[in-house]
This record gives sequence, C-alpha cells and structure tokens, in this order.
Amino acid sequence: MRVLGIDPGLTRCGWGVVDGRPGARPAAVGVGVIRSSAELDLELRLLELHTQVTALLREHRPDVVAIERVFTQNNKGTATGTAQAAGIAALAAAQADRPVAWHTPSEVKAAISGNGRADKEQVTLMVTRVLGLPAAPKPADAADALALAVCHVWRGPAQDRLRVAAIAGGIGAPVRSTTLPRWTGMSR
Amino acid sequence: MRVLGIDPGLTRCGWGVVDGRPGARPAAVGVGVIRSSAELDLELRLLELHTQVTALLREHRPDVVAIERVFTQNNKGTATGTAQAAGIAALAAAQADRPVAWHTPSEVKAAISGNGRADKEQVTLMVTRVLGLPAAPKPADAADALALAVCHVWRGPAQDRLRVAAIAGGIGAPVRSTTLPRWTGMSR
Repeated sequence: MRVLGIDPGLTRCGWGVVDGRPGARPAAVGVGVIRSSAELDLELRLLELHTQVTALLREHRPDVVAIERVFTQNNKGTATGTAQAAGIAALAAAQADRPVAWHTPSEVKAAISGNGRADKEQVTLMVTRVLGLPAAPKPADAADALALAVCHVWRGPAQDRLRVAAIAGGIGAPVRSTTLPRWTGMSR
Repeated sequence: MRVLGIDPGLTRCGWGVVDGRPGARPAAVGVGVIRSSAELDLELRLLELHTQVTALLREHRPDVVAIERVFTQNNKGTATGTAQAAGIAALAAAQADRPVAWHTPSEVKAAISGNGRADKEQVTLMVTRVLGLPAAPKPADAADALALAVCHVWRGPAQDRLRVAAIAGGIGAPVRSTTLPRWTGMSR
C-alpha cells in the first residue's frame, strides 16, 4: 500500500509518500513541502496548492491520501487557511479518484510514538527511526506528513475493518431487527 | 459588471448572479443552491461543489466572484466545512482566471439593508426589493448569495479605489517622509 500523507497548510503544506503494510517496516518514497507566499491573493495560493498536490498524485500514484483532520477550534488565526488547504488536497484526491482518510493529530502521534501528546521533536525523531532515514526530515511539516502516512499504513486497515464491521453490524445505519442482540427477539 | 455571489456551505451553498454598476439598480441573472448529501464522503462533497461552481462560471462568465468571508470562530460545528466550501469556490474562480472578492456578513447586511446586524428575513426582503423580484428567493442561502453579489456591485469598486489610494499613499508600505503630515516636518 502506498500512502500520500498531507499535513495541510497554506504557507507550508507538508507531504510525504510511504510504502508499507501493517506489521512491516514502512519505506519513505518522497517527502517535501509545498509553499505559497502570504503576499499572494488567497485564491492564487489555493490554486498553487491544488496544482502541486495534483502533480504529486500523478507522480506517486498513491492508493490512499491521508490528510490531517483539522479542528477549527485551535489556532484561530490560521484555522481557516488550514481547513481550506485540507479541502483543496481532498478535492485533488477525489479528482484523481483516490480515497481520502482523515487522522487526528493525536492519532498520528500515538501511532508513531505511542504517546498521543508527543511533541514535534519526538514525532520527528520517531519518523526518522521508523523509516530508517539518514537524517531527520525538515521542516516539521514534512516530518508530520510522513508520520501521517505511516499512521495510515499501520492503522488505516484496522479502521477500515472496524468500519466494515460497524456497517455490517448496523452501527450508523437504521436499526433493523436482524441487528438486535438475539435475546431482545425472545419475546416476539 | 457581472458578479457571481457565493454563500459558502457544504450542505447548501447559495449562488446568485447579478448585473449592475454603482448607483444603478442591479438586475438578477440567476440564483440557486448547490446541495450535497451529508452521507457522502467529504472529498466527494467538495468534488460536487467544485464541479457545480465551475459550471456556473462557464455558464454566466462573471467579471468577479464575491464570496462570504468565513470566520471559523463562529458556528464551530460547521465552520470547517464552510471554510472548505469557500476555498473550493475560490479555487474554481482562480482556475477560471476570475478575481475573487471577500465580503463579511456584516458588510453585506449593511450594504443591502443599511444595518450590519440585519436578520435573515430583512436581508431577504431587501434583496427581493432591490432586485425587483416577483417573489423572495428561497432558501435563505440563495438570497444571501444575491445580497453578496449586490454588495459587491455597490461596494466593490469603492473598495478597489480605497486599496489603490492606500497603496499610492503608502498605507501598508513602510512609512516614507512624504506620507507624514506637513507639520511634523516643521522642526527638522
């Protein structure tokens, strides 16, 4: 499975491509940062980001695009731009017919370091170790994007299994009698 | 001047096209709502929105796209989706080589009703009157999009003049001696 991880942002949008499967050591294929100048009009920054993510999708042909789930409650000043960058990356994935998976920052930190509240240095250190890189990826946005991709390689399939099980079990769907525990049908 | 107004949203994204110029009565060219099902994955909702906005740009060929400026502080639950919808509309405009103008809700309300804190009913009533429509546009998102377009027709050129004047006068640029009031130079 090849995963393109995206740490969304307008000024710096981290990306990282990882090949791997659950239980095996993942391998880094590429990593970098898409930048756009804060002096450009917003729509031109979004256009630049869309163009670059589309080019990455063409070049690396990932099976899945993993994007950090954005919470607009945090970092009010930049939250709108971050949400918009995430939306642009998701659009580019949909246009390339690739599925999108969303992971929260704490999910990613827990997956890569075992601690959902790990700091940036710890995440970068673990990404470097796990992927066997000769040097730490910089800036932190690039390391975060690789961590996202690794997180999806390790946790994504489990999430998918849970989702399939949940759908099969009727969670999130209208309750049908067949999904009720057996004993509730005893009196009927 | 033809303006496409966009009241961004994922579940309902209002749009309205208005022809006009400052000082004259504007005319409504088209109005509607782009909907996407909350049951679809986010990236597919964004794709649907992008496709529809791109189609509107091709059909109506506006000179400007006016989008409501989103504040993520408000309506936390839907703020991320609203910001993303606004970003997708701005991207579509940039891809069609159309400039984007952003107006805050209070700017729009003040322009259309004289009151920056007007309620939805008042905005709809005034949009209907100002554009001479036979009936009130529904839902409110459609009326809001028309109000945005009218706001830009009336206020956009003034904003542009202010921006040009500000740049010419050095506002936003490093202060040069020529921008200081004359009397501050008296003692030098």
